[in-house]
Amino acid sequence: MPAKATPSHPRNIKDIQHWDRETDVAIVGFGGAGGCAAIEAADAGAQVTIFELASASGGSTAMSSAEIYMGGSGGTRVQRACGFEDSTEDMFNYMMMAAGPQADEAKIRNYCDNSQAHFEWLVDHLGVPFKDSFHEERAIMCLTDDGLLYTGSEKAYPFAQQAKPCPRGHNLYIEGDNGGPLFMKIVTENVDRREAITVEYETRALTLIVDDEGSVAGLVVRQDQQELNVRARRGVILCAGGFVMNEEMLQRYAPKLLRGNNAIGNPGDTGTGIMMGMGVGGAAINMHEGFISIPYYPPASITYGIVVNDKGQRFINEDVYHARLCQAILDQQSDRFYFILTVEQYGDYEKFNFMAADIAGTGETVQELEQELGLREGSLQHTIAVYNEDVANGDDTLCHKAPQWLQALEPPLVALDITPGRGVFVPMFTLGGLDTLPGGEVLTPQREVIPGLYAAGRTACGVVRTAAGYSSGMSVGDATFSGRMAGRQAAARKT
Amino acid sequence: MPAKATPSHPRNIKDIQHWDRETDVAIVGFGGAGGCAAIEAADAGAQVTIFELASASGGSTAMSSAEIYMGGSGGTRVQRACGFEDSTEDMFNYMMMAAGPQADEAKIRNYCDNSQAHFEWLVDHLGVPFKDSFHEERAIMCLTDDGLLYTGSEKAYPFAQQAKPCPRGHNLYIEGDNGGPLFMKIVTENVDRREAITVEYETRALTLIVDDEGSVAGLVVRQDQQELNVRARRGVILCAGGFVMNEEMLQRYAPKLLRGNNAIGNPGDTGTGIMMGMGVGGAAINMHEGFISIPYYPPASITYGIVVNDKGQRFINEDVYHARLCQAILDQQSDRFYFILTVEQYGDYEKFNFMAADIAGTGETVQELEQELGLREGSLQHTIAVYNEDVANGDDTLCHKAPQWLQALEPPLVALDITPGRGVFVPMFTLGGLDTLPGGEVLTPQREVIPGLYAAGRTACGVVRTAAGYSSGMSVGDATFSGRMAGRQAAARKT
Repeated sequence: MPAKATPSHPRNIKDIQHWDRETDVAIVGFGGAGGCAAIEAADAGAQVTIFELASASGGSTAMSSAEIYMGGSGGTRVQRACGFEDSTEDMFNYMMMAAGPQADEAKIRNYCDNSQAHFEWLVDHLGVPFKDSFHEERAIMCLTDDGLLYTGSEKAYPFAQQAKPCPRGHNLYIEGDNGGPLFMKIVTENVDRREAITVEYETRALTLIVDDEGSVAGLVVRQDQQELNVRARRGVILCAGGFVMNEEMLQRYAPKLLRGNNAIGNPGDTGTGIMMGMGVGGAAINMHEGFISIPYYPPASITYGIVVNDKGQRFINEDVYHARLCQAILDQQSDRFYFILTVEQYGDYEKFNFMAADIAGTGETVQELEQELGLREGSLQHTIAVYNEDVANGDDTLCHKAPQWLQALEPPLVALDITPGRGVFVPMFTLGGLDTLPGGEVLTPQREVIPGLYAAGRTACGVVRTAAGYSSGMSVGDATFSGRMAGRQAAARKT
Repeated sequence: MPAKATPSHPRNIKDIQHWDRETDVAIVGFGGAGGCAAIEAADAGAQVTIFELASASGGSTAMSSAEIYMGGSGGTRVQRACGFEDSTEDMFNYMMMAAGPQADEAKIRNYCDNSQAHFEWLVDHLGVPFKDSFHEERAIMCLTDDGLLYTGSEKAYPFAQQAKPCPRGHNLYIEGDNGGPLFMKIVTENVDRREAITVEYETRALTLIVDDEGSVAGLVVRQDQQELNVRARRGVILCAGGFVMNEEMLQRYAPKLLRGNNAIGNPGDTGTGIMMGMGVGGAAINMHEGFISIPYYPPASITYGIVVNDKGQRFINEDVYHARLCQAILDQQSDRFYFILTVEQYGDYEKFNFMAADIAGTGETVQELEQELGLREGSLQHTIAVYNEDVANGDDTLCHKAPQWLQALEPPLVALDITPGRGVFVPMFTLGGLDTLPGGEVLTPQREVIPGLYAAGRTACGVVRTAAGYSSGMSVGDATFSGRMAGRQAAARKT
């Protein structure tokens, strides 16, 4: 495991014979968080050096769709142009529900209060393009160049009942799933344009350097097989991603994610940044949580179907974000899960087959399907009879799926096997990291600030805390915003 | 918060002017873990000092029933006398299932391989009395003086299908729920009898002392408003309990537990030991997990009833250990939960009313009860019709409750409201702590040993890792066993 090679013990400044590099702000990792941190720190007057393990910038942001979750304050330019007024309170309430009981209220408050301004920074300051158009169809990512879409559970129970729904997923102005590369191209150009920023590629961060008071004074990196001592006069910002590529850490901290079969991230997501922070006394929190999902749409029409467990029971509204449905699946006492569709709905699904589910059974009647699936006699029949009755009344009494997705399930029917571990596509990534203040300052278990140390993006534990409340765009939203916060705080640090 | 007062930063040995105390092994906390650690270390030839915050020994062990989970190797004396042969493999398989995906195989292996010997040590070496008698009735704690009972989900699905059931809960030879005080009285007498052990009460551990290599060399304690520097030549063992009394830590690490309403532990369970360990680079793991329960039995007869959610569905076999049922409740997408009983079963329950649940509704017919509970029409009727059909066939097709607990639900019926947050008794305590080797050595995030530092009992993350797999007796079993392991390793450490 690459992560094993990283020593957790920091070095003491007294043992440093000479400095190979000196800078105001040293940043570990050049993804979305590191790039935005560097820009913000440089613009605040600091000299900045980014150390990136890979040969190029990008990180996991470049591999993503780079949807960015933004809104509030009446709405971004795109939201308003598309006819949506978004209140900060609705956004705040939604994000608090999404983060669950482990929500960091101060961080979410700061994110929502400044989200519209973040949009403007991205657009006006960096030049990130968004088209003023709304993508209406339910989608997991936007394959058109539309600028705005719903990317979470905003319109679904129980969120819609407590926060007025508004689309907040901002999609870059480019066709296809190409937002990530474009976004990082723009960020990288902005970095390259700033003389105050130096980037050193193919450089591995090894450990932090601390003084006797426990303040972080720099870090040790390895480049060309040489160890270099880097003095960071104002601070070090860890933006080295999460730990989804470190199987040992997953086993120890987030074993739930091992039920996934597709780690989403870049090869550098080995937890190095988190462990460097822990090595100087930083608290890692929410380490057990992660995004784990069964992305069952597109097509949007699959939402008309129902999901049942091995008791033939429905247990969640199928119009939620896909990771929320997956979390509900993992939480069930059940060995098997099926998506039940009409033949017409299956026809739609077949064209995409995004989640790669096999057909588990078909039936000319519900009873036949029930038998073929080996479900208890009468169980699926009861479930579908109740569902169809509720569809007729326009009210999903059991699971509260929104009326727009209610359509009678008339045989012939098809059941897709969506049991994790049976071939279905189950992507995952981590949601735990270093505890930080909204400004990015890394905290000890007592929430005391470790002077000179900041974290952002997935290395920190950000505004997103649960799979059950995840919305697409929250990761890149958090990475870019938290990167900026950390860059600003580090640049302003008096030493 | 008392925990706030504890600095996480260790002191450096170079800054220590003089030693106020010198010992081979310093132990923080005199509960079950600390006491057993001290005895084992002293018996291995070490000089030992225990520092205890309270004015007396006891810790949370003294407040517990002190059931001790033991078995394997053919069976303890009590198991064999009661006619049970217990294989180490069955015990191992059960405990691995119980610990879930985050199981520590090496630790569970060591626990099971040496469990029978642990029984003998407790009996022969300390003088802990167990009666050779089996308590047959399903109970949450043993109010008789019987020596053995089932205390978990051993006989329930899916455990029974993968590990031959055997009772492993050993109950001290004393009437009533008085095992804890008796157990700690015996441990304390053993400690007092040993000249090599000194106990300093009313002494608060503040922080650890490390040398430049990161080895733990001692600790700082406060006594009579004075700070004392303690040199621990061979090691420090942290046995300071968990963090269920630290609301801020619960919020940050284990928000799930905030749904409980009764913290189980002593006032010292503020996470001090865990934080002292983290302060020197120790990894805290499984911090999100905790025991949280709705203890619904006694009476055992309540197990004949069924539990349903707000959709009127059953979702788990009701013959599991109570904390497993509670975990399933917390995992459901449901706002309300009911225990459905016949009037006769309710009569039994009324005599105990251990979980303090209110009556949510009654019905001369199932339909009437369904209406009274505001459940969807037909939902509870379907569930009970299916259940009664399965009862008649002796096979709980949906949830696999064991045949012995299948009894038809014939009206009139009573529904108890067991929704967490509506008055029902929901005890909780933490199950996360410092990552340790089976010998108690505290580990960094890279699983490197921190020389001179050990942890045991709830301060460490032990063999028990989930509420869903918890069995009574695992905590005191783990505390006493892990205490001994740490005591032995610390005493043997060459410095």
